[in-house]
Amino acid sequence: MTTLESRSQVGHAVRRLRDGAWKTADDVLAAEEPLEMRLVWKDGRKTITRSIAVTMRTPGHDFELAAGFLHGEGILAAREDVADISYCTDEGEEQAFNIVNVTLRPGLEFDASRLERNFYTTSSCGVCGKAALESLEVQGCDSVPPGFVVSAEVVCELPNKLRAAQAVFEQTGGLHAAGLFDRDGNLLSLQEDVGRHNAVDKLIGERFLEGALPLPESVLMLSGRASFELLQKALVARIPVVAAVGAPSSLAVELAGTFNITLCGFVKADGLNVYTGGERVRS
Amino acid sequence: MTTLESRSQVGHAVRRLRDGAWKTADDVLAAEEPLEMRLVWKDGRKTITRSIAVTMRTPGHDFELAAGFLHGEGILAAREDVADISYCTDEGEEQAFNIVNVTLRPGLEFDASRLERNFYTTSSCGVCGKAALESLEVQGCDSVPPGFVVSAEVVCELPNKLRAAQAVFEQTGGLHAAGLFDRDGNLLSLQEDVGRHNAVDKLIGERFLEGALPLPESVLMLSGRASFELLQKALVARIPVVAAVGAPSSLAVELAGTFNITLCGFVKADGLNVYTGGERVRS
Repeated sequence: MTTLESRSQVGHAVRRLRDGAWKTADDVLAAEEPLEMRLVWKDGRKTITRSIAVTMRTPGHDFELAAGFLHGEGILAAREDVADISYCTDEGEEQAFNIVNVTLRPGLEFDASRLERNFYTTSSCGVCGKAALESLEVQGCDSVPPGFVVSAEVVCELPNKLRAAQAVFEQTGGLHAAGLFDRDGNLLSLQEDVGRHNAVDKLIGERFLEGALPLPESVLMLSGRASFELLQKALVARIPVVAAVGAPSSLAVELAGTFNITLCGFVKADGLNVYTGGERVRS
Repeated sequence: MTTLESRSQVGHAVRRLRDGAWKTADDVLAAEEPLEMRLVWKDGRKTITRSIAVTMRTPGHDFELAAGFLHGEGILAAREDVADISYCTDEGEEQAFNIVNVTLRPGLEFDASRLERNFYTTSSCGVCGKAALESLEVQGCDSVPPGFVVSAEVVCELPNKLRAAQAVFEQTGGLHAAGLFDRDGNLLSLQEDVGRHNAVDKLIGERFLEGALPLPESVLMLSGRASFELLQKALVARIPVVAAVGAPSSLAVELAGTFNITLCGFVKADGLNVYTGGERVRS
């Protein structure tokens, strides 16, 4: 399992601020890559392959992931329902470990109409981190221009400001928050949701409906971790600085680096890590 | 906005253990309900309505959520692209605030093929919490039987045991974990992932591939919050007790109550909350 486990982490250089002092260090990121799950079965003499779902996951234990997902969705009832699970290597080397084929035992009855609903369908543009980044370029995204600068001191204050503004959070403890701040750390807007991607959609959607996009002079503060999906939303809205209380994933850092977004992680009152775009963070 | 904001929280009675003493209290949960987003546009004289995505979200700011999502996915570029956003009330009262129609301005060019990939498609069985629970019954799920009992002391130790076992976590700080424990608090299995649903799929999938399901004598420990989706996976694997470091959502509690799963939240060394199925937790 060494090969797969080593794919679950990615090294990255980081600038780290702690108690007023900057250091450069090597950091380890949790890997994030797409996984496509395909179902394979026989219908008479025909072999049918159907893409079921694409999920962003940490590589490793991919067969378990596919089996567990299909069991939870009611498609696989028992071990015997599976004739084979293997990586699909037809689509080229880069995707070799990002597509899993689950072959059903001959004669297994299942409700194929279930496959047509509730699941992600796949893009045809390939499943790997590089393809995910390229599809954003195809969509017309280019790099976020330089110019906007914010002080590290201001960024470090944002988690406390976000928490203070979370009216619902205090009561339920169950909501992710996303906040939009200006360069002086003034809160422009706050949204909360059980899903962190929803909180960001609500925040940016609010500005969209006001006709107030793009947002080239603002900082997006996240109450949790920073994933590919959240950075994608910031990119499309042209937000130059994203700060997170938690850790960023490997693909979040890669997207931020490719499109020149400043990404800060582990932000708290006495320090933060800068993963990309350090020129926008003034000491 | 009072109506929508009041839908973002749900009250629930809870048994709370702190420093060895049990109390019953009223707790406030973050609401979780499905939202279906539909795109409406004219093709000549025809009006086309297409379901784009279903997401589990906290009710409130739903128009912003839909606009932000479609903007992030590159379908809406600017405010002018939207002719109207409204709730779809055709499908009956229960779903009245769970379906949003986004009508595009006449003549807007967009790539309809984008809609066929990357997004969730919807089930035809309705979008509301009640329908989500009913669809599990249709899938053949019934209540998890009583009998299995675990002591509160053992449950309170699980978060520390989970953290101690997280080999990767210590380095990246970026991974969700799910652990399977027996009644004495022994770790049976651990999985980690950037996505919390993936960690649970890997954990249960591992047992599935060993032919070791169902899991009627085990406790599922989650490093984060407990959502509907995670409880669904526990239900299908017949896990009687789910414990989470964070808060449960309203729909997670509802699922647990409906199918007799014991759900504990805010679990830490000196206490926990029991939301449902308290008879399985021995003082």
